[in-house]
Amino acid sequence: MAKKKVAVIGATGVAGQQFLASLAGHPQFEVVALAASERSAGKLYKDAITDAHGAFRWYCQESLSPEFAKIKVEDAAKLDATKVDLIFTAVESDAAKDLEPRYAQTTPVVSTASAFRYEKDVPIFIPGVNQNHDQLIAVQRKNRGWKGFVTPVPNCTTTGLAMSLKPLHDSFGVMQVIMTSMQACSGAGRSPGVIALDITDNVVPYIPKEEEKVEKETQKILGTIVNGEVAPAPFPVSATCTRVPVLEAHTEAVFVSLAKHATVEDAKKVMREFAKDFTALKLPSCPPRLIEVTDDPFRPQPRLDRDREGGMVTSVGRIRVDHALPNGIKYVLVSHNTKMGAAKGGMLVAEYLIHQGHI
Amino acid sequence: MAKKKVAVIGATGVAGQQFLASLAGHPQFEVVALAASERSAGKLYKDAITDAHGAFRWYCQESLSPEFAKIKVEDAAKLDATKVDLIFTAVESDAAKDLEPRYAQTTPVVSTASAFRYEKDVPIFIPGVNQNHDQLIAVQRKNRGWKGFVTPVPNCTTTGLAMSLKPLHDSFGVMQVIMTSMQACSGAGRSPGVIALDITDNVVPYIPKEEEKVEKETQKILGTIVNGEVAPAPFPVSATCTRVPVLEAHTEAVFVSLAKHATVEDAKKVMREFAKDFTALKLPSCPPRLIEVTDDPFRPQPRLDRDREGGMVTSVGRIRVDHALPNGIKYVLVSHNTKMGAAKGGMLVAEYLIHQGHI
Amino acid sequence: MAKKKVAVIGATGVAGQQFLASLAGHPQFEVVALAASERSAGKLYKDAITDAHGAFRWYCQESLSPEFAKIKVEDAAKLDATKVDLIFTAVESDAAKDLEPRYAQTTPVVSTASAFRYEKDVPIFIPGVNQNHDQLIAVQRKNRGWKGFVTPVPNCTTTGLAMSLKPLHDSFGVMQVIMTSMQACSGAGRSPGVIALDITDNVVPYIPKEEEKVEKETQKILGTIVNGEVAPAPFPVSATCTRVPVLEAHTEAVFVSLAKHATVEDAKKVMREFAKDFTALKLPSCPPRLIEVTDDPFRPQPRLDRDREGGMVTSVGRIRVDHALPNGIKYVLVSHNTKMGAAKGGMLVAEYLIHQGHI
Amino acid sequence: MAKKKVAVIGATGVAGQQFLASLAGHPQFEVVALAASERSAGKLYKDAITDAHGAFRWYCQESLSPEFAKIKVEDAAKLDATKVDLIFTAVESDAAKDLEPRYAQTTPVVSTASAFRYEKDVPIFIPGVNQNHDQLIAVQRKNRGWKGFVTPVPNCTTTGLAMSLKPLHDSFGVMQVIMTSMQACSGAGRSPGVIALDITDNVVPYIPKEEEKVEKETQKILGTIVNGEVAPAPFPVSATCTRVPVLEAHTEAVFVSLAKHATVEDAKKVMREFAKDFTALKLPSCPPRLIEVTDDPFRPQPRLDRDREGGMVTSVGRIRVDHALPNGIKYVLVSHNTKMGAAKGGMLVAEYLIHQGHI
Repeated sequence: MAKKKVAVIGATGVAGQQFLASLAGHPQFEVVALAASERSAGKLYKDAITDAHGAFRWYCQESLSPEFAKIKVEDAAKLDATKVDLIFTAVESDAAKDLEPRYAQTTPVVSTASAFRYEKDVPIFIPGVNQNHDQLIAVQRKNRGWKGFVTPVPNCTTTGLAMSLKPLHDSFGVMQVIMTSMQACSGAGRSPGVIALDITDNVVPYIPKEEEKVEKETQKILGTIVNGEVAPAPFPVSATCTRVPVLEAHTEAVFVSLAKHATVEDAKKVMREFAKDFTALKLPSCPPRLIEVTDDPFRPQPRLDRDREGGMVTSVGRIRVDHALPNGIKYVLVSHNTKMGAAKGGMLVAEYLIHQGHI
Repeated sequence: MAKKKVAVIGATGVAGQQFLASLAGHPQFEVVALAASERSAGKLYKDAITDAHGAFRWYCQESLSPEFAKIKVEDAAKLDATKVDLIFTAVESDAAKDLEPRYAQTTPVVSTASAFRYEKDVPIFIPGVNQNHDQLIAVQRKNRGWKGFVTPVPNCTTTGLAMSLKPLHDSFGVMQVIMTSMQACSGAGRSPGVIALDITDNVVPYIPKEEEKVEKETQKILGTIVNGEVAPAPFPVSATCTRVPVLEAHTEAVFVSLAKHATVEDAKKVMREFAKDFTALKLPSCPPRLIEVTDDPFRPQPRLDRDREGGMVTSVGRIRVDHALPNGIKYVLVSHNTKMGAAKGGMLVAEYLIHQGHI
Repeated sequence: MAKKKVAVIGATGVAGQQFLASLAGHPQFEVVALAASERSAGKLYKDAITDAHGAFRWYCQESLSPEFAKIKVEDAAKLDATKVDLIFTAVESDAAKDLEPRYAQTTPVVSTASAFRYEKDVPIFIPGVNQNHDQLIAVQRKNRGWKGFVTPVPNCTTTGLAMSLKPLHDSFGVMQVIMTSMQACSGAGRSPGVIALDITDNVVPYIPKEEEKVEKETQKILGTIVNGEVAPAPFPVSATCTRVPVLEAHTEAVFVSLAKHATVEDAKKVMREFAKDFTALKLPSCPPRLIEVTDDPFRPQPRLDRDREGGMVTSVGRIRVDHALPNGIKYVLVSHNTKMGAAKGGMLVAEYLIHQGHI
Repeated sequence: MAKKKVAVIGATGVAGQQFLASLAGHPQFEVVALAASERSAGKLYKDAITDAHGAFRWYCQESLSPEFAKIKVEDAAKLDATKVDLIFTAVESDAAKDLEPRYAQTTPVVSTASAFRYEKDVPIFIPGVNQNHDQLIAVQRKNRGWKGFVTPVPNCTTTGLAMSLKPLHDSFGVMQVIMTSMQACSGAGRSPGVIALDITDNVVPYIPKEEEKVEKETQKILGTIVNGEVAPAPFPVSATCTRVPVLEAHTEAVFVSLAKHATVEDAKKVMREFAKDFTALKLPSCPPRLIEVTDDPFRPQPRLDRDREGGMVTSVGRIRVDHALPNGIKYVLVSHNTKMGAAKGGMLVAEYLIHQGHI
């Protein structure tokens, strides 16, 4: 199969760089265009990310692929979307609101922005969890008269939560969810991001808009499609989202009330056996299992577990009975916010959409 | 009133040092004895805390009082308890099990150890919250044939939780409590404590025995005295206790279900008006109010709020409605684990016991 | 003596806030004007530092004085300098280049900016070290036709270095200086400052322009006045300036070659006896001694020693022989970059200038 | 060629684990014995590193090889050294003093301990830097009547310094060296290691015995063999060694006086071209070049550069002229203290000794 031609929008930013890191050597995608703001347009990519002091502002662990380094950056506002088969966008929500519908007129868009997440005809995809929401793509195209479409990935804090709840919901029925997150600094990006003076030796107990996103997105992702739109899952989700001095990966302490009694072993079992059909597709970015359950009481830990399976697995541990909620189960999860929770998660979405023939 | 003669046991350790810092210049107490393990016995205090490299192992922000520096350290196992009016103990639980009953035969003991916390005739005191549990002192003396008694302070993670729940419970009835803590490294002490390799850029999701303590102690502290023993508060408490890269002060995300509906303003009001009778006693270590409620959505933060009122106030913020629990309220608190949560909290207990004539 | 009327320029920024914290309750100064950029002009100070989320952006440990909170902020570009006796400026270098000469036409200016530091007729003051450089004030006034003048404090990294070298230079003659700094994040301010993603678990080995400043300023401060200008000290200074994950206080490892042999005890002695005449003036912001020498081999440490004497003392330890340099001595110092190294250092300058009748 | 049979001593500790991580899949070595203290003896390796809470105390990024997991741990004091061709030791200096001579009677020992580093007939090896010191092996065998020998790797702080000085010394002659290190917490191990309470938001300016080791070892490594022993390099080395809040990799700010003038470009060139003959041997653990020179002024940084080439390369940046020393050059280096500076460095030593026929 010929490789799909792709463009990355917001390519000079951190999230855009993570798309590039994920795309280097990818078996299905060929990067043919990089776009950013007008300021970077016209420069070679490597020059666009080199600053006035001569510092090379590439922020991924992986090296920049030499073939991307020499691509000339385009102005995102002027990109000809028809020359690619797929567009990955990694821009702020305001920019996304403007750019994504323009691209989607002709071309599929996989986005890390929140701009379209809460539209009725837009699925928030986590493949393995709600891939059947791809039904909305046809609805979206029809509603909007687009040849392409927009499929955003969830907020990075939602991903691990929705992932871990899904097998519990399928087997035992989730009734109530209470979650406290301890989120990594990378979630705030770099402009300006979290400054050291604010987070060193500290916890910041508030991340604007985060809790609302997590609560709403979890219900939407675990919801069902009824009459061409998502009926959100009926259980309430209550989150307290905090920032901690961690570079990468969000840690979440989850308390769940279930409709049916489940033992700790039951919960472990359904998590361990989760999504085998999906992982059996062996999509290029898919880990061998979506959830890794550990019995070590001191795990998962963000620094030690975030890079497991390339940052694509949700690590769950400390599964135990919760006595405060009816049929309560509690656990701790770690999910890589800038890998499965962002660009690499978007990559997996794109791979699944190809597999289903949407791209 | 003549000053009470006091001894500090475990004086060379961090918790013991914190007792000394609190006792320097205290209007009611005169330190007449310092005790530690046999190894330190016979040395001047300042020499006992100077190591082989010449480093001075005093760990408090406050300077060591010169008068304590020159006290000769005694062997805790051989201390003559009758020469003091009160003993502060800051030793490990195993040592406390052995030493505290011996001292209590003749002398009141205020302890930071957990050894006796779960005995039926032993109150876990937080003055302002459950001072009426002092009824147990007479029971304890009678049961055990002691002239003295043992009153432990709670686990440092319990203190802020019980403090913040008390006004809610009094006014609206607490039905369920779910709490995730983000605890400071100082809670683990220094022997060996939390090592930098384990906590830098990380969260450790498990602290052995901590959750059980918090759950049990909160119920006991908010319980009522029935027939000479504590009937624990009937509401369930479920905790997930984690360690974060913070030096001092525990942060807790609390979700509470109430028996009666309360608005956010109601909750703020009862917290702000809490324990005015108690603070009116103006005990030397008592802050002007026990709970400080903030409207700044980014507060409380452990580094910024821990030293408020000398580390004796519980800071509460982000009070808001929780939609997952019946009549749900959620909030974040910060409590100084080694001040109100340890030695200085013990100081306040002792001051109250003097006020009530128990010492 | 009537209090001097003062204005603080750049009052909403971190450095400006530190001036306010230092001015609260100051015996010699009365704050009559606060100025900032046009954006803040017209707002009450407390509103000018409250953000859109309702967060109160006051960054000092000390509380904001209620009397400052209600001052209406003025536009720095339009300030009437004649209404005050003294102006403290805490603005970026570019703004200082424009504003300070305008104010200095009528009014003395004590500045934390580097804009005028390298002018021939401008002293860089560290009282106790080079107060005799106040001779330049008359020169400056004459040269520029100003009634006022500009006296900048040094770069925060220079302060501790120049302070610790001065007694060595006076007694033994400094011949060569090699210094590696480990600087606090607060040195970079908050706009955007050092982001957590860059400094957590890391050292950044470069701070633009910092090394040049330290090298040049140290020579100027330890220089002599010849014919109405500073003849820089003739010894070379070589610095490597790095950023480390520390909130406040710069740590510097210094290696010095001396003209005359000095033992470790000699070096300790001259540092301990340094500037007694100056500290005897008992200026309000002056610590009891300018240099604190410790024999504890593990000290000084920035977190433990930065707040010693209100952040106004330079802590020096590990003084020992250096075998690589002729008559070599090496040591480690800690100096509080945002106290003695900034606003509070400026306060001390102003106090000395009043004492000398310059204001 | 048949694989060499090797034993790892101190296998349960962190340094021992790093040997195991390096040995997994190694083309030249077959692990046939793991030894530790008596306490671990008799247990399967995986059980020996599992603690009472069920936590798995394996500290390397790489997973534990399943084949090592099931080896039964032996008592190091009773190990039969004759059954292996080579022994890697990772034990404390005191234990090494006892164990290593016993093993060396029959078997070559590559050690991370300092016990034998300062003996006249013992080379401190950094292959590529002083491989010709292997002449001492014959001397050592003869002196001590051993069939085996002991070759220690240097202190982890010495490695990068000696490495970076070698090309300068060869081409221009080193006359004086001044170095300030900012060392990672992992250098102190885990028993108890550096505790978070001591290093968070801090710098500790003293590491007992470290400076002496660096000074002495650098001279020995860059020395020449004269009459069967090392004549240390004649230039003085002066170090200040500090600990900073970094997990892995030591950063060093180096100031060097050269015998002959060299430009910055000259220095870069000799570093870039260094040791090509050695890297051409393509030993399994050898990186493609020993020194990586960067022109980015903000590099090297420990977190970003430590894992370059598997942690085996010394990254050097900020090479510039130093005006305080005659023919002065200054630079910053980063070297991975627990990879090239410990077990993986020992691996490279062993590989070279095989290549030369010593094993």
